[in-house]
Amino acid sequence: VSRESDLLAPAWAGTGAAEIVDDRALVAAMIRVEVALATAQEELGVVPAGVAKVVAATASPEVLDTGRLTEGLRATANPVVAFVDLLGAAVAEHDPAVAEHVHRGGTSQDVLDTALVLLAADALDVVAARLDTAVAGLADLARRHRGTPTAGRTLTQHAVPTTFGLKVATWLQGVLDARYRVRETRARLPVSLGGAAGTLAAYLEHARSAVDDPVGATLALPDLVADELGLARRAVPWHGVRTPVADLAGTLAEVGGVLGKIATDVLVLSRTEIGEVAEDPTAGRGASSAMPQKANPVLATLVVTAARQLPAQTSVLFASMAVEDERSAGGWHAEWQPLREALRLAVGAAVNAAELTGSLSVDPERMATTLHRTDGAIVSERLSARLAGLVGRKEAKALLTASTAEAARSGRDLLDVVDEHLRTRGVDAPDLDGTLDPTAYLGLAEPLVDRVLAAAAAPHDSAHVEPIAGDR
Amino acid sequence: VSRESDLLAPAWAGTGAAEIVDDRALVAAMIRVEVALATAQEELGVVPAGVAKVVAATASPEVLDTGRLTEGLRATANPVVAFVDLLGAAVAEHDPAVAEHVHRGGTSQDVLDTALVLLAADALDVVAARLDTAVAGLADLARRHRGTPTAGRTLTQHAVPTTFGLKVATWLQGVLDARYRVRETRARLPVSLGGAAGTLAAYLEHARSAVDDPVGATLALPDLVADELGLARRAVPWHGVRTPVADLAGTLAEVGGVLGKIATDVLVLSRTEIGEVAEDPTAGRGASSAMPQKANPVLATLVVTAARQLPAQTSVLFASMAVEDERSAGGWHAEWQPLREALRLAVGAAVNAAELTGSLSVDPERMATTLHRTDGAIVSERLSARLAGLVGRKEAKALLTASTAEAARSGRDLLDVVDEHLRTRGVDAPDLDGTLDPTAYLGLAEPLVDRVLAAAAAPHDSAHVEPIAGDR
Amino acid sequence: VSRESDLLAPAWAGTGAAEIVDDRALVAAMIRVEVALATAQEELGVVPAGVAKVVAATASPEVLDTGRLTEGLRATANPVVAFVDLLGAAVAEHDPAVAEHVHRGGTSQDVLDTALVLLAADALDVVAARLDTAVAGLADLARRHRGTPTAGRTLTQHAVPTTFGLKVATWLQGVLDARYRVRETRARLPVSLGGAAGTLAAYLEHARSAVDDPVGATLALPDLVADELGLARRAVPWHGVRTPVADLAGTLAEVGGVLGKIATDVLVLSRTEIGEVAEDPTAGRGASSAMPQKANPVLATLVVTAARQLPAQTSVLFASMAVEDERSAGGWHAEWQPLREALRLAVGAAVNAAELTGSLSVDPERMATTLHRTDGAIVSERLSARLAGLVGRKEAKALLTASTAEAARSGRDLLDVVDEHLRTRGVDAPDLDGTLDPTAYLGLAEPLVDRVLAAAAAPHDSAHVEPIAGDR
Amino acid sequence: VSRESDLLAPAWAGTGAAEIVDDRALVAAMIRVEVALATAQEELGVVPAGVAKVVAATASPEVLDTGRLTEGLRATANPVVAFVDLLGAAVAEHDPAVAEHVHRGGTSQDVLDTALVLLAADALDVVAARLDTAVAGLADLARRHRGTPTAGRTLTQHAVPTTFGLKVATWLQGVLDARYRVRETRARLPVSLGGAAGTLAAYLEHARSAVDDPVGATLALPDLVADELGLARRAVPWHGVRTPVADLAGTLAEVGGVLGKIATDVLVLSRTEIGEVAEDPTAGRGASSAMPQKANPVLATLVVTAARQLPAQTSVLFASMAVEDERSAGGWHAEWQPLREALRLAVGAAVNAAELTGSLSVDPERMATTLHRTDGAIVSERLSARLAGLVGRKEAKALLTASTAEAARSGRDLLDVVDEHLRTRGVDAPDLDGTLDPTAYLGLAEPLVDRVLAAAAAPHDSAHVEPIAGDR
Repeated sequence: VSRESDLLAPAWAGTGAAEIVDDRALVAAMIRVEVALATAQEELGVVPAGVAKVVAATASPEVLDTGRLTEGLRATANPVVAFVDLLGAAVAEHDPAVAEHVHRGGTSQDVLDTALVLLAADALDVVAARLDTAVAGLADLARRHRGTPTAGRTLTQHAVPTTFGLKVATWLQGVLDARYRVRETRARLPVSLGGAAGTLAAYLEHARSAVDDPVGATLALPDLVADELGLARRAVPWHGVRTPVADLAGTLAEVGGVLGKIATDVLVLSRTEIGEVAEDPTAGRGASSAMPQKANPVLATLVVTAARQLPAQTSVLFASMAVEDERSAGGWHAEWQPLREALRLAVGAAVNAAELTGSLSVDPERMATTLHRTDGAIVSERLSARLAGLVGRKEAKALLTASTAEAARSGRDLLDVVDEHLRTRGVDAPDLDGTLDPTAYLGLAEPLVDRVLAAAAAPHDSAHVEPIAGDR
Repeated sequence: VSRESDLLAPAWAGTGAAEIVDDRALVAAMIRVEVALATAQEELGVVPAGVAKVVAATASPEVLDTGRLTEGLRATANPVVAFVDLLGAAVAEHDPAVAEHVHRGGTSQDVLDTALVLLAADALDVVAARLDTAVAGLADLARRHRGTPTAGRTLTQHAVPTTFGLKVATWLQGVLDARYRVRETRARLPVSLGGAAGTLAAYLEHARSAVDDPVGATLALPDLVADELGLARRAVPWHGVRTPVADLAGTLAEVGGVLGKIATDVLVLSRTEIGEVAEDPTAGRGASSAMPQKANPVLATLVVTAARQLPAQTSVLFASMAVEDERSAGGWHAEWQPLREALRLAVGAAVNAAELTGSLSVDPERMATTLHRTDGAIVSERLSARLAGLVGRKEAKALLTASTAEAARSGRDLLDVVDEHLRTRGVDAPDLDGTLDPTAYLGLAEPLVDRVLAAAAAPHDSAHVEPIAGDR
Repeated sequence: VSRESDLLAPAWAGTGAAEIVDDRALVAAMIRVEVALATAQEELGVVPAGVAKVVAATASPEVLDTGRLTEGLRATANPVVAFVDLLGAAVAEHDPAVAEHVHRGGTSQDVLDTALVLLAADALDVVAARLDTAVAGLADLARRHRGTPTAGRTLTQHAVPTTFGLKVATWLQGVLDARYRVRETRARLPVSLGGAAGTLAAYLEHARSAVDDPVGATLALPDLVADELGLARRAVPWHGVRTPVADLAGTLAEVGGVLGKIATDVLVLSRTEIGEVAEDPTAGRGASSAMPQKANPVLATLVVTAARQLPAQTSVLFASMAVEDERSAGGWHAEWQPLREALRLAVGAAVNAAELTGSLSVDPERMATTLHRTDGAIVSERLSARLAGLVGRKEAKALLTASTAEAARSGRDLLDVVDEHLRTRGVDAPDLDGTLDPTAYLGLAEPLVDRVLAAAAAPHDSAHVEPIAGDR
Repeated sequence: VSRESDLLAPAWAGTGAAEIVDDRALVAAMIRVEVALATAQEELGVVPAGVAKVVAATASPEVLDTGRLTEGLRATANPVVAFVDLLGAAVAEHDPAVAEHVHRGGTSQDVLDTALVLLAADALDVVAARLDTAVAGLADLARRHRGTPTAGRTLTQHAVPTTFGLKVATWLQGVLDARYRVRETRARLPVSLGGAAGTLAAYLEHARSAVDDPVGATLALPDLVADELGLARRAVPWHGVRTPVADLAGTLAEVGGVLGKIATDVLVLSRTEIGEVAEDPTAGRGASSAMPQKANPVLATLVVTAARQLPAQTSVLFASMAVEDERSAGGWHAEWQPLREALRLAVGAAVNAAELTGSLSVDPERMATTLHRTDGAIVSERLSARLAGLVGRKEAKALLTASTAEAARSGRDLLDVVDEHLRTRGVDAPDLDGTLDPTAYLGLAEPLVDRVLAAAAAPHDSAHVEPIAGDR
């Protein structure tokens, strides 16, 4: 069995991503396209009944020699010319008359584009399923840690307290956004069928000799093939105008970004000095070749690896939009491998993130300890608000900036320092007892968690997808 | 008046794009955010009535010294700290008591994110309007040239005939797709309001001393500010989870790609040797510094320039998603300038493309001449289909490949060569008169044009936008 | 035999690129690293004599089960932990005592980085060899067409005449530049050896028990391994500071750009309407699945495909420089697959470009015809210079702009129109006979060709490479 | 005075970067090019003596109305056509006869390319100077902390000890590499002079009427202009083959990466929980708008911001290499703004990094404390090496993995746990006293520091630059 080189692809190795888009899957998808085309043409009366059945029975990735497909790819700049030859030969061996009706009116781009869309659909289905898993895992974490106090951090420094539940709920909102886009893009993935230059002329030519209304039959053909393959219809062939690929690009990049955000936070929180979360130690992950004590955050690393590559891969897809002619030389071809890689990366990230979010170990005690690390300075925003009424907002902030620095330097109690500063200004210090308790300054963390949990439970985003003008 | 350096930015210079997102616009937007915040807080009873009015009356980009904002930016890594100081001082000069209530509970990211969203909204509105213009221009072109025969080209070679109307309709479908996404993204642009670490704690703290239901009031605050600014509500602060920025990124890249496709085709068709289209010569564009005869395709060049830059700029936005903490150090900051540049590029491309598509000069006679350039070889696909019935499909294709090469080499008539080949095989040549007429092999070009024109006329894509789970 | 999926990778399929960097090659390179390490340690007396020999004899890619390496990759985020286990087991089966000395003091990154460098070296060697071929092919073309007149084109329009030889010489200069950088980067590719955190501590620890001067021996170790593998020495481990990878990135991107430039020009000149060059028709390339007459420019398309992907792949390598710690989590890992892909793309582009430039078919007659297509307007720059003496430079240019437009519109002779314009101004027209001959306005095209040919023949760029401070 | 919008560009705002490449600098550079061209032509006798002087005296950025240049840019897709008109008019006002000799034979790309190269040269000079400062600062830090023990970290976890001096020395090696490339690229920045299509035809045409050896004079022209401007000579015009831009791209990306690495590490080490380094608190940086206690790592954030953008900007430059014709439509134009932005980012990063590295505050006590945080597990690699002799390497590693986990969980002393494990296996525990002292396991950190310091002190990398074949 052919196996992808994956030892340099930690972002997707071992996740099942490779098999979804490898050459075997591609050839299988190209066969599906030819079968669907024949099926639709049978239905329209353009080819005799039974062609599709023969093709489906005769062709398989195993029968088609990929070595010769590679040769063909280098000879013609696409794998379809050789594929059609091999397919025709395989069918002809079984029934030469049927072979005459295979790929009837088709062009390379019809077959390859639609096959790529089928691979994308399979990959998006896996991504969506794993995002569902992540949604469930994150919702559970958010619920359990709805009120677990932890340090909010900005620009690497303790800022104000929050709850770990809100942190997770914020991640979750991102995953909900990404899942929405995955579903929307999946539902809109269109068939690509236009013939040599997008006029459907050869399909029409073949229909002319076979049916009474060749124009009607040929206009209906792309829609029937779309229905057959579970893909969206489209008003007009898109060989040269690649908005469906752009939608995929944006969606995959967003998936990587959202999951990469979670993983990046896990890496920070896993640091030896922080240690507030850890990957599941029972999973046997994280060994080092040199250091016996190491328990590296492996899944988070793998997800970050994917997130770091997706923007570049998808930028090739966006850049391949501005190309020339009814079919470009190089622009179209440059899409294929980055699309394959982007799909692998997104699947890999989703699989690894689903496992990560479902098994993350959380240490509320460590969070509590860390939260007190600045001896109350983490709530100086609150103190500042309290003092603003006494000395004015600007003055209050300046006073606190000086006081927190002084307390940190000297090790003195922050409230004592503040008290002293106030006295110097001739202001009577108010009662500030309890003000420095970080767990008393959590804002709306908990109700905000509830909002996201409600959103996660709502079914409506799977309801329907608004059609783009011209999609059919 | 401050003026952007634009002499190296042909993609947007002179299009009005710079002014939409320059520092003056940014400061004005930050003021709008502070006014909206004060307005909402007044409504909730958290600050006294009249604050918003004073801020609106006192503050203006002119009053705030941008030199000091730049200093502040380098001192604090964001422009808001200095902005709030200057704003406070300006308001205090007018009424010190009011100054105490400005930016109440706010954090830098609330102000900057929401201001950036406002700039993005303004830019998208311009883009949408110019895409409307392009839709009208392209629809007109497609209608007029619905049946104008022209060469379909793939991999730089004549493929089969099409109509110029279908070529334009295909462009138009891309613009419809892009316009849909622009509108959708515009409608979903959310307010960003979360306080220092996304808990709304400082807003809540201020509300406590002023209202009976501080939690309810503070939960309502972001929604009120969103309504005030005409932005979307959002379930939870998105300081650290940047899906709204990702949506912008994907949308802007798609706009660039779609318009870049059109411009790339215009460049090809404008070539001296092709000359089927030309930019409006009366517009005084296209002069060269050296060559008096030159009439360069300038607008198309400008649009391509934008399209070549947008994927890279937006890749920074996607890459900035996978960042650490409640607010990242560097990741957030790396978004700003690429977002500004991406907005400028998209506006510039839309303005230039609107002008280009509205004034393109088309030469149907040149198209007709070019179409016959291969002496009928451009319809050999058709001939192949005709002969397939006689000699089998594979044989027919091989015969035509040999015949077209021979006819091109020798200058002989293609049908004569084919006839000879058939005789050699002992096959009686069928009547092929008229088969080589390119204008008789246009497939469904015309009805496909109609489909897109119908889609362009349909109002439904402006109807409504499906909410993402959690958007409110 | 394991085979890479390559049907979506036209940029390198069938060029031998895949085998240079596939998993088999990687495992073989990792074995080479372990053997070199053992050899150096033997030489220093740190491990007993004979270890390297046993490792070399026992280990092979076939022995090491890549399925288990993939599992190990997902478990530990790098393939080396499992590799060392399998290697140790294989050696132990042969001689358990020897197994104790394998990978002695090593860390995963030492093995993987150095193995990747070895793959890069192999790939650069192939690239350099193919660039040599391209240099020879282009030099031959430039020599043969040194004086072949052809249209110079700017912004898609005929500008002034040039020679095809100069066009090719300009390409050639680019290839010389790229070849220089390939050789320079190849010569500087360094060994990576630092131990777990770059201090060589474990290597030192092992040396302590074996030799008298462990510090001296361990300091010498990386240099010995470098020498053993034919790699450059380096002052200090570079686990966390990735300038060698950046050099590779810049070099590979430049190779793609230079070859992509040539291929892009070939695509333009191959257009049906231009037809001044063509790919070798005897090579059996360029067939279409639908259109029998098609002879697509395949090699040029394949090279452009590579050029369109390399900037994005290498941008990941540049972006992976700014990462945290002695070894980053995700940043390091994100380099591997883009580096592999960039190497494949560069090899593929070099192989295809070498074949393209060595077999390009040139049509001087077609060039001559095209050159006269604008009826002399292509030399209006010259005419303008001539008239400048009579009416001033600005006036001359304006006169020519008007005249060329009028001549093009009316079909009249350009000189007649100019003559008329001059008379209107009361200026006696000078003798302009022959001025409109494009072949008489070739500037210094021919001596410039000679300059580049001389540079191509010069041996000096292969001489030596200047060391970077700190390289040893 | 015109001022760039910089409030969204924290990566370079306030660093002086903007002024180096703004429109004023561009226009000044274009004037310099015209003066140098006239000077060279005077020297060759092609234009009368005194022209250059008049141009230099008459023209200035103030005289040339940039508003009209912007209009011209949108009308002709480059700013040079309008620039030459305005320049000609300004000179003509002073002396109409001289105006006839300005820009004699020139084309837009000659002026703009060379002007851009001049801006790049200015920017690289600043970058090189600031890298010198950084080298000095880092060398000082490395020397002072040559032996300061600190935790080496890999994949976010404590790995083995190192010294802070080695960490800094590793950064320093990166800066030395980058500085070498900056100097090399600076020295090779070439003049761009080729006339309308790279044949120098118009320059030759003008020379014909003025000198005896017009060919010799015109061949010498580009070299003279290069010498005049302090730029490198080049064998052949490079309008269409952009290797000099690619060299710039690679160099700027490498600068960003190297400095970004340092800044990323500073951000990690500045974290509240780590606190081993801090930015200079006396500099008044790092305030927050909301949180009085905050002292954010601002300079590091600014440098990271630049590093995150440079790979994308430079990828546009690489992608602009593969373009069509003697001058491309859109490809050339797409270089300008990304090049400007990349130069700004590199200058900004160098300025900020020079300040950061020169003022970093280091806390050796905190490092010492952190180093002991894992109670000795950080040296389990060493322990493992010691035990390997007793129980075999594999067994030793497994034993330590179990022991460190158990010690961490139970809080027991690691050596006790190890002892117990050994006894269970019936092995007599060796004397391990002192083995757990992290400061005794620093490997070769100190001599490695010395190596880099020696490299930093060596003058040789500024010596000379090897010419590329064809550079002259």
